[in-house]
Parts: sequence; C-alpha cells; structure tokens
Amino acid sequence: MKIKDCKFSGIKAGIKKDKFDLGLIYFTEPSTCVAAFTKNLLKSNSIIVSERHLKKTGHIRCIIANSGCANTACGNDGIDITEQICKVLAEKLNLLPEEVLVASTGVIGEPLPKEKILSNLDHLISSLGTGKGKIFNFARAIMTTDTKPKVVYKSLKMKSQKGNILCIAKGAGMIAPDLCLNKQHATMLVFLLTDFLLCREQMEQLMQHIIVPTFNSFSIDGDTSPNDTIFFVTTNISNNVIVKDKEFKELVEHFKIVCEEIVWKLLSDGEGVTKVIKIIIKNSESKNAEKIAKTIANSLLVKTAFHGADPNWGRILSCCGRSNANIDINKINIWIGKHQVVKNGTSNFVKDSLVRKEMKKKFFEIIIDAGNTYCKNLPYSFFTTDLSKEYVEINSQYKT
Amino acid sequence: MKIKDCKFSGIKAGIKKDKFDLGLIYFTEPSTCVAAFTKNLLKSNSIIVSERHLKKTGHIRCIIANSGCANTACGNDGIDITEQICKVLAEKLNLLPEEVLVASTGVIGEPLPKEKILSNLDHLISSLGTGKGKIFNFARAIMTTDTKPKVVYKSLKMKSQKGNILCIAKGAGMIAPDLCLNKQHATMLVFLLTDFLLCREQMEQLMQHIIVPTFNSFSIDGDTSPNDTIFFVTTNISNNVIVKDKEFKELVEHFKIVCEEIVWKLLSDGEGVTKVIKIIIKNSESKNAEKIAKTIANSLLVKTAFHGADPNWGRILSCCGRSNANIDINKINIWIGKHQVVKNGTSNFVKDSLVRKEMKKKFFEIIIDAGNTYCKNLPYSFFTTDLSKEYVEINSQYKT
Repeated sequence: MKIKDCKFSGIKAGIKKDKFDLGLIYFTEPSTCVAAFTKNLLKSNSIIVSERHLKKTGHIRCIIANSGCANTACGNDGIDITEQICKVLAEKLNLLPEEVLVASTGVIGEPLPKEKILSNLDHLISSLGTGKGKIFNFARAIMTTDTKPKVVYKSLKMKSQKGNILCIAKGAGMIAPDLCLNKQHATMLVFLLTDFLLCREQMEQLMQHIIVPTFNSFSIDGDTSPNDTIFFVTTNISNNVIVKDKEFKELVEHFKIVCEEIVWKLLSDGEGVTKVIKIIIKNSESKNAEKIAKTIANSLLVKTAFHGADPNWGRILSCCGRSNANIDINKINIWIGKHQVVKNGTSNFVKDSLVRKEMKKKFFEIIIDAGNTYCKNLPYSFFTTDLSKEYVEINSQYKT
Repeated sequence: MKIKDCKFSGIKAGIKKDKFDLGLIYFTEPSTCVAAFTKNLLKSNSIIVSERHLKKTGHIRCIIANSGCANTACGNDGIDITEQICKVLAEKLNLLPEEVLVASTGVIGEPLPKEKILSNLDHLISSLGTGKGKIFNFARAIMTTDTKPKVVYKSLKMKSQKGNILCIAKGAGMIAPDLCLNKQHATMLVFLLTDFLLCREQMEQLMQHIIVPTFNSFSIDGDTSPNDTIFFVTTNISNNVIVKDKEFKELVEHFKIVCEEIVWKLLSDGEGVTKVIKIIIKNSESKNAEKIAKTIANSLLVKTAFHGADPNWGRILSCCGRSNANIDINKINIWIGKHQVVKNGTSNFVKDSLVRKEMKKKFFEIIIDAGNTYCKNLPYSFFTTDLSKEYVEINSQYKT
C-alpha cells in the first residue's frame, strides 16, 4: 500500500480525548492538486485558506488535517490562526506556506486549538512514514462519528506504466455532498492520491466527470456540511498528455471503482445505518430524475420505512408527487427489488410479505420508471440509507 | 359547543380494528364551502371527487370522512368506488351526490373498504347529533397516529351578530402542509366550520390570507401528503357583504387565533414530538426567509439537536448556508431564546450551559436576523418540532 513520493502520519494531539485527531500527508516532491469544496455558503476556515493557497501556487507539498473541530464560524481570527499553523508547519518542512493545504472536521463554532496543534507539529512530522500502518493512522486522525477508518487502494499495471491509487475518506453524518469543482462543500473529507503520470487537464476531467459526480450521488441525512472537501493529488504530473486515449479510458474506470468503493464505505458506516438503498430513476430528464431521487432519499417517512422493512411504498409514490419534478403521476411505475409495487401511478397489489422480504436485505434497489419514453438519458442513480433510532441517539447528544 | 344547522357523528365501521374510523358532518341547510388541497401531484380519490363536486354545485350538505385508508393509489376503480359511496349516502339523506364531500387518511395503496362503509351508513346517519360528545366522536373518527382528538371552539358576540367557530383537525405524521387554494395537498385534515354570516368573497379572503398561510407555516417531518385537505364551511351564507369592514377585521383575528390554536395542537401531538420550536426570520425577503426557515425546520441534524437540547447552533448556521437563500453569511445573527449564539456569521461564544437550559424547554424560539436591513417585511415565522426515537419507532412499523 503506497503512493510514490508520499508519506503519512496520524497522531493524538489532544484535540479530542485520547484519540487520533491530527494527520499529515507529505509529498517529498512538488505535487499537483485539484480540489472540490462544499457549495454551502458557510465555509470552514480550512477551506478558505486552502482555496487561497491553491490560487497562489501550481503545486502543493503537504496536507494537514484534524478532527474534533470544524474550524468553522469560530471567531474573526479563525483565518489568521489557520494561516499561522500553515506558516509554522511550512517553516519546519522548509516549504512555502502556500504549499500547505488544510482540512478540518468536527463541531462548528469552536476555535481551532492552536497551541495544541503547534506543540504537536514536531511529533506529527517525525511520525511521517510509508506503509499501511501510517496510512491507517492518518485515516484514523480524520474520523468523527465514523466507526472505521476508510481506505481504498489499487495497485495497477497498465500497458505503458504501472501506478497506484489511494483514497482515504471520512464521513458518517451531515452527509449530503453537494460539491462543486473549485467551490466549497461538508463534512465528507476525501484524499484521493495517485502516482500515475497525468496532466492537469486529465485531472480536471477526472474530477468533473467521475470524482465529483460519484461523491455527489449519495445522502445519509440530507445535511450538506460547510467542510466537505475532496483533494485529488498526483505526485507525478506531466505538462503534456502522456497517457493516451485508450489507456486513459481504462484508468478512468479504475478511478470510478475506487470512488464507488469509498462511497460504499461511507454509506455503510453512516450514523446508525443498517442498510443501503440504491434509487434508480429511468425514463426521466436528469433534472427531474435528481429531484425525485433526492426527495425519496431524504424523506423521513421513506427512510424509517426502509429501517423497519415496512412495505409502505405509498410513501415513495407520494415523494414522486411532491418532488416538484415535472411528471405525469399516472405514468409512474415503481419496483422494490424485483417486485413491481406501483403500475401506472396506482397499486399493483403485490403481497406485502414479498416486499418486506426484499426490504429486510442489507442492500436493495428501488427503481422508478418516470414514464418519459422519449427521454434517451441513461438511468440516474442515487444512494441513500435507512434512518434508525441510533442516528437520533448520536445526533441528539453530539456536542453534549 | 355548537354550529347552527350542523350535526356530527363518528362511529366504528370496522375499517380499523375496534376504533372510531368513519365520521359525518351533516348540514341541515345548504352550506357554502371553500376548500384547499395538497399540492402533491399524487392525489387521494377523496380529493379528486371532492374537487369535482365543488365544481358542480354552489353549496354542500355533508362531509364524510374516514381514517384507516388514504383512498390513494388504490387501483383504477378508486374514483368509481368513492363516487358510489357519495351516491348511496346522498340517496339516504335525500341529497344530490355532488352535495357530498369526502376526506380520507391512512395507508396509501389500500382500496377503500366499500362494503364496510356502505353497510355502516345507516348507523352513521342515525348517530348524527349536536353537542360536544358528537363533535368529539367525529374528531376521533379521523385520528390515525394522533393520540388526542383535536377540537377548537369559540363562541363570539360581535357588535352586529353572534356566532360560533369550530375547527376539527387531525395530523401527526407526513406533516409539512403545502396547501394551495382550490388545489390538492397531505394528511392533515381540517374541518373549519362557522355559522357567522359571511359572503363567499370574504370566505375566500379568509382562506387565502389567514387560513392557508397559517396551516402552511409548520412542519413535523417535511413529508407533504397526498391527502391534505381544509374544508372551510359556513352554514350562514350571504350574497352581499353584510359583516362590514371593522367587524370583519375583528372576525379575521378570531379565525386566526382558532387556526393557530389547532396548529399548536397538531404540532404538540406530532409523532414522537417532545418540543415545539418557533423559527423567526427577520430582515429578509420573504422568499429567502422561507428557504432558510424550511431548511432549518426539516434538517435531521437540527431536529435531533433540538431533541437532546444539544446547543449545537453550528447546524443552524450551516442550514442558512446550504438553504439556497441569497444571503451574506457574514451578516447572519442567531438567537436561541434570549441568547445570541451567532454574531455576524461567527460564534458569539455564549456558554453552552445557558443555551442548553433554553433548549430544554417544551417550547422555545430561534431568531435568525438575515441582515438585509433594507427589507421592510414583517418577520417570517415557521414552526417545527424535534425528532425523537419514538418517531422512528412509529414510522418504521406503520404498515407492519
């Protein structure tokens, strides 16, 4: 498990009580980063500073990340404190401050514990290393309500070169990513690293067409956070297109698989989640499809019915009706697994027991045919989870 | 407790197991009805038939209502069955079918049990009567997950006349009314009756400016039902404006109070609700105010924090940021009760313990000043509730 020219560390800096809470990714050579941030107007100071740094320089050298504090809405000096930390870290590593990026996750409104972070930088740097253990220490340092560190790794041999893709992520609640390339987005943090030789244009293509859409296609609780960040970094930049068309297409597929695998890890470790549901909208313009899918994905009544395997499909049909999508409700067909529960907008009189059996699975699909057969779009997919008492338990006492 | 020329009954018709489930309001004289229905594209057959009847005739004579079945998406003959029930009921009461209105609430997708209803019509009619007992029997017949019948009554003496206002309602889940005058809307059912002398124009004014806005200003779970209905009826119609300006204004206030009282009953009896929160948006255009208020009102993270009295105000500020409202996040000020937790978009460093004390109350206010001081609108108010494990419990097993 490695990325060329890339070292990791994760330590306990005392931001949280006796837990990993501060992490560092250090690139031994200048590396290229393409970033996507939350669209939430409320932005973490970490995002504001990272954006500023990315504008100043064409390459980066390290990313410092913390859990236990969102570094958001925490006083007027929040940006200054963040810049100071970058500056001290840069001096210690003999870098420019703008070669440092920052990511944070935790409670909004509490100031970043500057002294704790500064006094632990030496320890953080001396802990840098390669290998699975160091990578998992970093993954642990960014966990909040996550129960497991989330890492996906692929080592690949292509025709013209071999290389590695590594993705480290966190996020269990406040998850409804709505990321925008080079704009701000909430507490999903994604570090997607590679040592494949890529040019910036290809990185941007990957980000726009594969990475951002994949991370925007799921919701745990419908709450888009002010901290959501994807940093996509290659340690192996090229000024020209070296990896050619056919091989790039193959690489695109591998990146897609890595992103999908990490999304799956995020979903299944979501706060109080006991099952994952894929919503597929067919025969619909993409705008309508998105409205229908997100209304279903975020409906409390649907999510609680999923939880109890309650075959109450009327709630799904009702979501179609209130989604503001431009649809003919009498043309809607709905399947839960292989069972068609709605035919032309009304009951297909399937036995509840059959549907319940399907809904008891840890994963199942809902297919909505919106009936617009003139529309030649590919089906639109969106993932959601159930809503359990444990989610309520976790989130009614988060700060307490 | 009475409305002139108006009788009530509620019986156990066997739609549900040994519970009141069928109700009738009978007007001994032709009465005038103004209606508002859900905006959900999925419509109950009861709404489709009621709309049809209201278009045919200038007056109505009775309203039949049931719980235990939403009469929605329950087969292609659903409208026919509903019309048949109206026809038989009309014959028995010597009325025209179009003088009958219908309202239903319960599970979507199950056919209306026609035989049970038809065979109980004689019993329903013979049970008609006046007085508190009969009114509460009707109120019981429309309950689903409601734990209490909801009735508000005012007997008023104005300068030129005396009269009565009676409001009977139900609704505990699938509650985010989005009603539209003479359009369709979900399972909140409201029967607002009066014997004050009014003309149709005044009724429509009341509906548009007081009744619909009041019932659209709260959410329990963000799910707008396909059955939401308000029937506003006077047994005392006038062709001309009789109640003059000043007295009408006074009457408007009384109607407003009655609607607000019943909304309060709906909120506090919401599924699993332990507290009610009023969200007030100041210094904001109404469109932005509505976006902010509804994003906060329907956020799982905010609602669970309310439940646990968790002073996690960052979630409220984050909702402002992701609401799609056109705001300057650095001008946002937020109060929880009397405590200002956010000042100009960042923490005001109030002690958590003070805020927690406020949030432990059964009712408290959140004030958001959106900072648009050029805007001279009145503050926008919206009510919401907390989200408890009991809500999850109720709704994961609703149909099971």
